[in-house]
This record gives sequence, structure tokens and C-alpha cells, in this order.
Amino acid sequence: MMLQPGSFPQCEPRLFLKLALEKMNAEKLGIVCIAEADGKLAGIFTDGDIRRMLLKDQKPFPALFTDDVIVHAVKKPTTVHPDDSLMQAIEVMEQKEIWDLPVVDENGALCGLLHLHPAIKALLGMA
Amino acid sequence: MMLQPGSFPQCEPRLFLKLALEKMNAEKLGIVCIAEADGKLAGIFTDGDIRRMLLKDQKPFPALFTDDVIVHAVKKPTTVHPDDSLMQAIEVMEQKEIWDLPVVDENGALCGLLHLHPAIKALLGMA
Repeated sequence: MMLQPGSFPQCEPRLFLKLALEKMNAEKLGIVCIAEADGKLAGIFTDGDIRRMLLKDQKPFPALFTDDVIVHAVKKPTTVHPDDSLMQAIEVMEQKEIWDLPVVDENGALCGLLHLHPAIKALLGMA
Repeated sequence: MMLQPGSFPQCEPRLFLKLALEKMNAEKLGIVCIAEADGKLAGIFTDGDIRRMLLKDQKPFPALFTDDVIVHAVKKPTTVHPDDSLMQAIEVMEQKEIWDLPVVDENGALCGLLHLHPAIKALLGMA
């Protein structure tokens, strides 16, 4: 039930923040994963980061929207490894109280995204 | 594991949007429940609503921040009844792919908030 690349919001570090938000809207997910050209995860940016940014950084919209997304991203997010079990991943999301876990291999490459809803659906046999 | 009134972000419909966001930040939750003076639930406003609002409604910050929160709220959110079971509530959150359920009685009064993290922790015996 891991979301495969292409089926969740992903962008490069220097994308305009506004375009990153549009990718989130298009996929109806509250997270965008930011990867370097070589595939390595550079950070994540979530709906909660938008809220915290708005209250901290009161630049006018046009200026904020044309910042590189990486400027406002969480650079060292919690991740899981492709070999970790579903239950391990859910426990990590519960301990950290987060909704998403980028799946990252031993080379730092982004392999996919584990979102809590499909994970819980799988756990409950609702998938 | 329902969050009791006073332990989650709650405000009146005519609070400035900016102050509603500050309540969300203070409680570290991505939702604020909006209740009338008589206690009836008037709507909710979430982190996802912030993202959708920013892309739809590009007013300057000062104008947006001084809108009444109810203007940007979801007026008829999905809710549960105090008598519903934990599993019923989790299933509703999974079907709707949402993170929070206001708990509302037969008179429309807001009794509390069910947040998916504590619900899943209770389900898994992590609470």
C-alpha cells in the first residue's frame, strides 16, 4: 500500500513554493516530497508546515510563493526503509504523530511514500 | 481518548483567521473547531483548508488574516455521536480520509474531538 513514485506529490528543491502547493492540491495530499535530480530525498513540506510558515514568515504572498520550496521544507524528516514492516511504519507514525513516511533506501533514494490512511485501511482489512 | 473541550483548538465563528491559526499552533493540531456561543458546532477549519484557500483566494495576507474564520470554514463537516464506538469512528475517518472527527450530540452541541492518532494508539494498545 506504499504510494509509488508518480502517484504522490514530488518535486525538485528549487521549485517555486506555489507550484509545490499546486502539486499537493492536484494529488489531494497534505505533503510534497522533495528529491534531488539523482533521486535522493532532500526534504518534505506538509500542510502543517504551511500553517507554521504563515505565522512565522509574514512576507507578502507573491514573495512567499516564489521562494524555493526547499527553503521552507523539513530537511531531515522521519523515514522508513523499504524492508520495514507495515506495523513498524504505523508505530513510527503514531510515536511521531505524523501522517506520512517517505520510504528511503540505504542510499538515501526516495522509493515511495507511506500514507497513514492506506496503511490503516490495510491493517483493518478495508483496503 | 476523545479530546475534551479545552484540550483542542476551538473558537467562535467571528474570530480573525490569524488568531484561529494561532490556536492551532498553540495546541499543535491541524484543526480548529468553530462553535457558536450556545455550544453548537458551526464548522471546522483544517491545515488542508489553509492550503486550498491560499491557492484559491489570493488576497494580501493582512486582508486574509482578518477575515472571520467561519468564512473559510467547512460548514457541514463529518461528525460522530458520543455513543459511537471507537471502531466506527476510525472507519468513518478512513472512508472519508480525514484525521479528525468532531463529536457532536443530538442537539448539535460540540462535545469533544476525536483525533486519529490517539484513536489508532488506543486500537493498537499504544496509548
